[in-house]
Amino acid sequence: MTAFPSISAPDPEVAAAARARQDQLTKPPGSLGRLEDLSVWVASCQGVCPPRQFDRPRVVVFAGDHGVTAAGVSAYPAEVTAQMVANFDAGGAAINVLAEAAGASVRVVDIAVDAEPLSPSIGAHKVRRGSGNIAVEDAMSADEAAAAIQAGRQIADEEVDSGADLLIAGDMGIGSTTAATTLIAALTGSEPVAIVGRGTGIDDAGWARKTAAIRDALYRARGLSADPVGLLRVCGGADIAAMAGFCAQAAVRRTPLLLDGVVVTAAALVADRLAPGARQWWQAAHRSTEPAHALALKQLELEPLIDMRMRLGEGTGAAVALPIVRAAVAALASMATFDEASVSNGQKQPTSS
Amino acid sequence: MTAFPSISAPDPEVAAAARARQDQLTKPPGSLGRLEDLSVWVASCQGVCPPRQFDRPRVVVFAGDHGVTAAGVSAYPAEVTAQMVANFDAGGAAINVLAEAAGASVRVVDIAVDAEPLSPSIGAHKVRRGSGNIAVEDAMSADEAAAAIQAGRQIADEEVDSGADLLIAGDMGIGSTTAATTLIAALTGSEPVAIVGRGTGIDDAGWARKTAAIRDALYRARGLSADPVGLLRVCGGADIAAMAGFCAQAAVRRTPLLLDGVVVTAAALVADRLAPGARQWWQAAHRSTEPAHALALKQLELEPLIDMRMRLGEGTGAAVALPIVRAAVAALASMATFDEASVSNGQKQPTSS
Repeated sequence: MTAFPSISAPDPEVAAAARARQDQLTKPPGSLGRLEDLSVWVASCQGVCPPRQFDRPRVVVFAGDHGVTAAGVSAYPAEVTAQMVANFDAGGAAINVLAEAAGASVRVVDIAVDAEPLSPSIGAHKVRRGSGNIAVEDAMSADEAAAAIQAGRQIADEEVDSGADLLIAGDMGIGSTTAATTLIAALTGSEPVAIVGRGTGIDDAGWARKTAAIRDALYRARGLSADPVGLLRVCGGADIAAMAGFCAQAAVRRTPLLLDGVVVTAAALVADRLAPGARQWWQAAHRSTEPAHALALKQLELEPLIDMRMRLGEGTGAAVALPIVRAAVAALASMATFDEASVSNGQKQPTSS
Repeated sequence: MTAFPSISAPDPEVAAAARARQDQLTKPPGSLGRLEDLSVWVASCQGVCPPRQFDRPRVVVFAGDHGVTAAGVSAYPAEVTAQMVANFDAGGAAINVLAEAAGASVRVVDIAVDAEPLSPSIGAHKVRRGSGNIAVEDAMSADEAAAAIQAGRQIADEEVDSGADLLIAGDMGIGSTTAATTLIAALTGSEPVAIVGRGTGIDDAGWARKTAAIRDALYRARGLSADPVGLLRVCGGADIAAMAGFCAQAAVRRTPLLLDGVVVTAAALVADRLAPGARQWWQAAHRSTEPAHALALKQLELEPLIDMRMRLGEGTGAAVALPIVRAAVAALASMATFDEASVSNGQKQPTSS
């Protein structure tokens, strides 16, 4: 259930055609910088040049609670997770507003909230109520880990089958940065003190409790760095496992995906182990203020598009960066060529002086 | 004609109200990072909280030729400037496509193209054909410098009077980065070799010619660092002088403005001398690959929103960053508060553990 097919790369011939077209547009070659790289990536993911503008970008927010909140690792009480699910459903959260501004729609799924599901549809893929306190126990059973990964895969399939042409995963869960940081530390061999961040905004004493919890979880996860499913089970969480399945399945379905913050990127780091090469189908939308986030992006060899010192999650960083990807597509698809515009292409001939 | 009224700051009371509202929205305080700062800035510029979404963002591309192209400082022949004016008018250039993607409209004005104006409206504010070769002569006369600054002011007035609620200046002119780099070097006391960039993409020999031309222009401009109009006259250009007038007048008209690349930012550096404090009404949209750009932004104490390694000009960097400013406005204007959404605000009480 957790075995993925081998991941093929975005189309290299289309990438070459897109690169060639960029050099025919009315601008100095390379002068649009990373926009040109982005446009080539989108074209090669879509398998067509010029690329199509995104018609149905889709944000899926994965909600889940984390038993490690009992260790006092967050500035917020755990009941906020369920309250925020209701806020997403009502359209009042940051991701609702920012996704709408970027022309994307939002779906929230309850994977592991420690409450009854808000509605049958939101709870359709629910794996369990909460996840175990990873400082002292496993986040979930092996069966639950497999079910959570499968849930994420099914959700990605549902979205792609419904026409989604760009995917964004978002996270909501009090305590989730503690699990995410543990996963990143385990997969990069890092010392917790070097990479533990403030999450939603804990004080110094909370930071010390969080660091201690991560150290305990890492000790429990020793020897599992080559076992991605085992890591999710021992020191992750059902919501993060579902996000990992979702990110990997996007690659299986040849659908581009924008990574958001530290929690999604921790899931992606695991996903690229579950389905090697999946990262070719992803872009890093932003870098958050969480130290572990930059480390995970470096490991994935992904350079974030923006750095707005955000640290909210929910998919908000990806939603803010989405218009940049749209701009890249628009430039490659709609600009005039030198020939069409009768503009001299000085690069092809000596300068006039 | 070049005397500006004193510039007042964006409304500090509205800024305080916007900051307070940010802390009531359903997210940890500060978790939207720079988006929060941006939203506060927009609200204080508009004088109202919550801020209004931009209804009519307007890009004005200032076109002009530069006699210094005779020194072989560009990879492109000078006739490209006029050809690109036609491309802007036909909607095929990068700024047309990127502005449309960001919900902005584009106007092109011929300030100093070395050709007859494409149309009477495009040439309505024309000051002269081309600018002098600043390596060996002044860019223009004192009367022309005053007329160019006044043209930029009038254009800003026309746009604000027509309902523009956010302004972007763009540049188009083969050779313009040579003049811009000279102005920035003069105003920051920098050595040309440290800050001369590749412009549209010159080779090593062209870079050496460009650096020599800038050094000659700087020698001609010695003693003028406290005389902004004199600098524009001796080592700037009519298009850059108009951009300076435009940027300063945006502040006079209390209208927010996004700076684009090195040419516009050079004009802005002069504008903040013409109208001290004008920079309070600007944001730096992006950082280009031109070394002088980063230097000018640092002098203006403005932190760029994005760094996509762009180096095209035309207002393209600002157009790509505009959706980020829109996102900031949307978040402050449309998110639910803790009370509205019945979400616990953990920051106000002890955590549940």
